Order: sequence, then structure tokens, then C-alpha cells
Amino acid sequence: MSTIFTKIINGEIPSYKIAEDDRHYAFLDINPVAPGHVLVVPKKEVSYLFDLSDEDYLSLQLFAKKIALAMKKALPCERIGVTVIGLEVPHAHIHLVPISKEGDMNFCRPKLTLDPKDMTDIAKSIVKELN
Amino acid sequence: MSTIFTKIINGEIPSYKIAEDDRHYAFLDINPVAPGHVLVVPKKEVSYLFDLSDEDYLSLQLFAKKIALAMKKALPCERIGVTVIGLEVPHAHIHLVPISKEGDMNFCRPKLTLDPKDMTDIAKSIVKELN
Repeated sequence: MSTIFTKIINGEIPSYKIAEDDRHYAFLDINPVAPGHVLVVPKKEVSYLFDLSDEDYLSLQLFAKKIALAMKKALPCERIGVTVIGLEVPHAHIHLVPISKEGDMNFCRPKLTLDPKDMTDIAKSIVKELN
Repeated sequence: MSTIFTKIINGEIPSYKIAEDDRHYAFLDINPVAPGHVLVVPKKEVSYLFDLSDEDYLSLQLFAKKIALAMKKALPCERIGVTVIGLEVPHAHIHLVPISKEGDMNFCRPKLTLDPKDMTDIAKSIVKELN
């Protein structure tokens, strides 16, 4: 059975898409830790990040870097933080989170739910910086 | 002035070293989130991970992957989680944390202080898997 991320990549589940190439996909986390929180995933269904081949792993990391640089330009924040936990969905994914202080990376606090218009505006602002 | 990580790399401050090559250094976090928590740093003093050149960034990520694979073999855990926050020390660093559930990656909870013998044993067990 496909993972929820494969369904998002295939368009079976809608997403606020940030970027896509032949091997990777990036979209807004629907329940962000902070506004503008992005998930970066390989199209290949591999559960554990470090089970990716070196080539696939580095390709994913470089894709994530490009997204992070655009996020930093688009969003009000000090930095883009990175987290990989990966116990929730069996499909490797990198969380990119705009942060201004250490506590902004706390995945245990209640997640946000943003208005669809705000999500659309945030996605557009990041995409604009990518182009 | 040198960062605390540069002082560690230069041996001015002692550390439980895990691995080193000409461009990278890995050592146990002295106040771990979980036992076996490792910090991976580039020898180059760059504050923000995404300010590294693509080459330096990918080289660091590949070094971190090797450490993570050894940690997973050496330590009782489901996975190795990854976090980059970077607001505490102005020298890019990747946290590698052995985790078994999502809450294990909570950087806001009180950090641990382990006995020096335990730290030494943990470091040795990871180094053994690297070799």
C-alpha cells in the first residue's frame, strides 16, 4: 500500500506544493510546528533516511538545501531548522522549519492549523524565491 | 575568537571523540537528549548550515550518515533522528540522536548528564562499529 506521502506526490491527496523534480517532492506540512514548515521527501518509498543509497541521500539533501534557502528569503525567521524523526510515516522525510529561537523546533507542542488562504500565500511566497 | 567547537576540534577542550577526518569532527554531546547523542561539525567555522557551499554541505551530510549508521548498530534504538537548530553555538552542527519514539527528539526537556565511564563506553561502542 502506498504511503500518505506517495499519495500526495501522485496527487491523490492534495498538497500545498513547493517544488518537485524527478526524484523529490516538497510541500507544506498541513499541521505545521511553525508557519511555513515544509516536508521534503524522496519519491522513492524508503522508510528510513539512512537506508537511502549515498547518491539518493545526497540528492535529497541538496534538494532540501535549495528549499531551505528559498524559505529563509520568503519567511520571517532567523534560520531554517532541520529535523528528521521519521517514526510517524514509513517514508523518509525531512522537516524544514522556520525558527527564531531554540523552542521553535519543539515537535511535542500542539501543532498549528492555518487558514487555507494563509497556506496558499505562504506556499506562493516560497515558490517565488525558488524561481 | 574560536567557537567552542573549534576548541574541541583543536583539543583545547576535551571531548568523547567518535570520528574525525580532514574536514569533519564528531563527538558525544556532553549534555545529551538521549545517551549516545552525537554532534557532527565541519572543521570550517561557518555558523549556518545552509551557508556552507554545496560541496562542503554534502561532504558533511555524508560524514553524518556514516556516523548515524554506526550509531544505529551500536545503540539500543529504533532509528537515529537528526536535528539542526544552530541558534546556540555559531558553528554549524548536526545533532544525531538515538530515538525509539517521537518524544525522544524533544530538545526542550531537561538534558542528561552521564557518568564519564558511561560516556567513554558509549563512545567506544560507536567507534567499534565505524571500524
